[in-house]
Amino acid sequence: MRIVDLIEKKKQGLEHTQEEISFIVDNYTKNKIDDYQVSAWLMAVCFQGLSDIETAYLTKSFIDSGETLDFSSISPHIADKHSTGGVGDKVTLVLIPILAALDIYSAKLSGRGLGFTGGTIDKLESIPGFKVELTNDEFIEQIKKVKAAISSQSPNLTPADAKFYALRDVTATVDNKSLICASVVSKKIASGATSIVLDVKYGSGAFLKTKKEAQELGDLMVKTAKLLDKNIDFAISSMETPLGKCIGNSLEVIEAIEFLKGNYEKDLYDTTKELAVKTIINCKKAPDSLAASELFDKVIENGEALKKLKEIIDAQKGDSRVIEDYSLFPIGKNKAAIKSTKKGIIKNIDALKIAKSAKLLGAGRDKKSDKINFGAGIKLNYKNNDSIEKDSIIMELFYDEIPEQKLLEAIETAKNAVEYK
Amino acid sequence: MRIVDLIEKKKQGLEHTQEEISFIVDNYTKNKIDDYQVSAWLMAVCFQGLSDIETAYLTKSFIDSGETLDFSSISPHIADKHSTGGVGDKVTLVLIPILAALDIYSAKLSGRGLGFTGGTIDKLESIPGFKVELTNDEFIEQIKKVKAAISSQSPNLTPADAKFYALRDVTATVDNKSLICASVVSKKIASGATSIVLDVKYGSGAFLKTKKEAQELGDLMVKTAKLLDKNIDFAISSMETPLGKCIGNSLEVIEAIEFLKGNYEKDLYDTTKELAVKTIINCKKAPDSLAASELFDKVIENGEALKKLKEIIDAQKGDSRVIEDYSLFPIGKNKAAIKSTKKGIIKNIDALKIAKSAKLLGAGRDKKSDKINFGAGIKLNYKNNDSIEKDSIIMELFYDEIPEQKLLEAIETAKNAVEYK
Repeated sequence: MRIVDLIEKKKQGLEHTQEEISFIVDNYTKNKIDDYQVSAWLMAVCFQGLSDIETAYLTKSFIDSGETLDFSSISPHIADKHSTGGVGDKVTLVLIPILAALDIYSAKLSGRGLGFTGGTIDKLESIPGFKVELTNDEFIEQIKKVKAAISSQSPNLTPADAKFYALRDVTATVDNKSLICASVVSKKIASGATSIVLDVKYGSGAFLKTKKEAQELGDLMVKTAKLLDKNIDFAISSMETPLGKCIGNSLEVIEAIEFLKGNYEKDLYDTTKELAVKTIINCKKAPDSLAASELFDKVIENGEALKKLKEIIDAQKGDSRVIEDYSLFPIGKNKAAIKSTKKGIIKNIDALKIAKSAKLLGAGRDKKSDKINFGAGIKLNYKNNDSIEKDSIIMELFYDEIPEQKLLEAIETAKNAVEYK
Repeated sequence: MRIVDLIEKKKQGLEHTQEEISFIVDNYTKNKIDDYQVSAWLMAVCFQGLSDIETAYLTKSFIDSGETLDFSSISPHIADKHSTGGVGDKVTLVLIPILAALDIYSAKLSGRGLGFTGGTIDKLESIPGFKVELTNDEFIEQIKKVKAAISSQSPNLTPADAKFYALRDVTATVDNKSLICASVVSKKIASGATSIVLDVKYGSGAFLKTKKEAQELGDLMVKTAKLLDKNIDFAISSMETPLGKCIGNSLEVIEAIEFLKGNYEKDLYDTTKELAVKTIINCKKAPDSLAASELFDKVIENGEALKKLKEIIDAQKGDSRVIEDYSLFPIGKNKAAIKSTKKGIIKNIDALKIAKSAKLLGAGRDKKSDKINFGAGIKLNYKNNDSIEKDSIIMELFYDEIPEQKLLEAIETAKNAVEYK
């Protein structure tokens, strides 16, 4: 088998066999095929696509490229949740404690933020002392004890995906559904989850721009998992506007804590609940949506979910006093207020523009090597469809030392994010 | 400017500016952009194409990447001829001496064979002593003195093309018309020719499979040259069956010598004459096709063209006694005859199969590093539309020591090349 013939085959729109897909993935992972041949193949894939079965083969090859975790001795049901990435998306921080409070085990491997998308690992690091890198043993021990652990991704899982992803990132071959699907699904399956729910987002602040694309990607991920004898469920949610009211690492953890204290925004509540209900049913903790929904509300009301969050923070060496004392979080020393230019109704606060503004303030990164300021971010006082008076403060920008030019740009971008009806 | 954005732009089918094309070519040639990004861009080009003006920019960037030759002090008209590659194509060996005999200067840079395509440089090397690598000074001096020189391509001309070509070869991105056009036209313009004729071949033994594709490529090359203020003319010829009766290096040089002695096959004569007539008119040596055609025949009949071939061989240190004594050529010691399986009329002798058979005998190479046996090859005794008796020898295979398995495969492939009416 020669890689140049496989590139030609895909270029002509023909379907690869399992052996051919394995040949590409295995040899590339072992550095036996060069980047320049795989990038040509990836570009051909962007134009010709991969069939469902090819996507499953690719996913399988990614899984087989590294270790896989197995929690079947702990519980028959191990939940995992994955978001395709959004702005203000702190669902994981709320969902995992709720599930743990309902005796549903979660083995959550999360990533860091890049571009306009935040990452759960960055958010958790804003809790002083929180340890995000667990060894496989620590990860497993904590899951046994606390029923949940959140760790940064292990390089031992799906190393092929990491190599493919790095190449896609620099060759404009990121946005193919099959490639995205194989990347996401392989990681989830390799990390040992049996009940996987995906939060597929669309809109200005998401990778996918339309609901149709989100539906297609979700369907493809379900099909791919099924072809590999795994179950995946997904929900679709809009990312035209940030989820909840806080954007930025410390601010989002605070919003998650407030949620578990019973103070939440409707959009964040709805999205989290939809994912929770699917998981609760999948894990046989409730027979139907109504019962699952009641359980969800119960563990928030009785404080069990908040208690679980404290246990997770303690287990991972974080300072759990943050739950009662938000002043322990790093928060930007400086504030800039964006005021309403008129009396009216807010039509939309654009997710992408808010993400860009927050990144300029220091809350995000452009390159993996960029440093994040955990205290930087944006707090919205209003959401879409809210009535507002002229000169009311729509949002506040939090930041520390940043160049004036960047601050001005951040303010301008945040102002432009607001659209009135 | 970032290369990843330019890849994305081409992926979306948008048109590059001249600056963008230069950015890609210049930085890649200087190793400032990696192979894997250029290969992704090349694959996007294969799907989205390049416009005429983008093709001209690419051609210009290739030319500007290295030295260019200038013969304007020697003659206002410098001819060059290029074939897109075929089987049994010894036109250059016949055409250049004919033009020189008509006082038309040729500065011919030629390549080596690869795959099923032969190369003029390999053919000339079958003449004992023939020196194919001339320095720029030697090249120019010989053109002044003999009116013709044939040299292997200088790495100083269009180095960008060499780098792009090597990458295309291993990434299944060879067959895009704009990429082919830029490669061919840049080399021809950089080598200082003012009158360029292209022999665009189509059919089983050619790179392009249909006449339509050949016409499109020819048109594109003419347009590209025009956008760069140069004139290019082209002829289209079929390559369903080998040109002439000999395939293989020594055998083809012998056929070329025979041609100049007045013994030629009609197909080889027609193709050579068409290209010659265009060149003679372009170089103002005749007012029209009829007059040009007469000049062509005249220098064959009066032996002037053959004399010129001798002068070229002498100038390049070859043993010109080969012209009268073919035994000085290396010729395969062993012969295998392919006989007709029936009485009838030959419909076609397939060019690609003959080329494959000849390559198995040692006449060609798969990789640049493969060694050629100059004496290996195939001599046809019959051509298409000839009547043949059962058991007549259709063709003879010439070879030296080769593994029996290869020989059997060569014989089988040669047999399968023959189709009866």
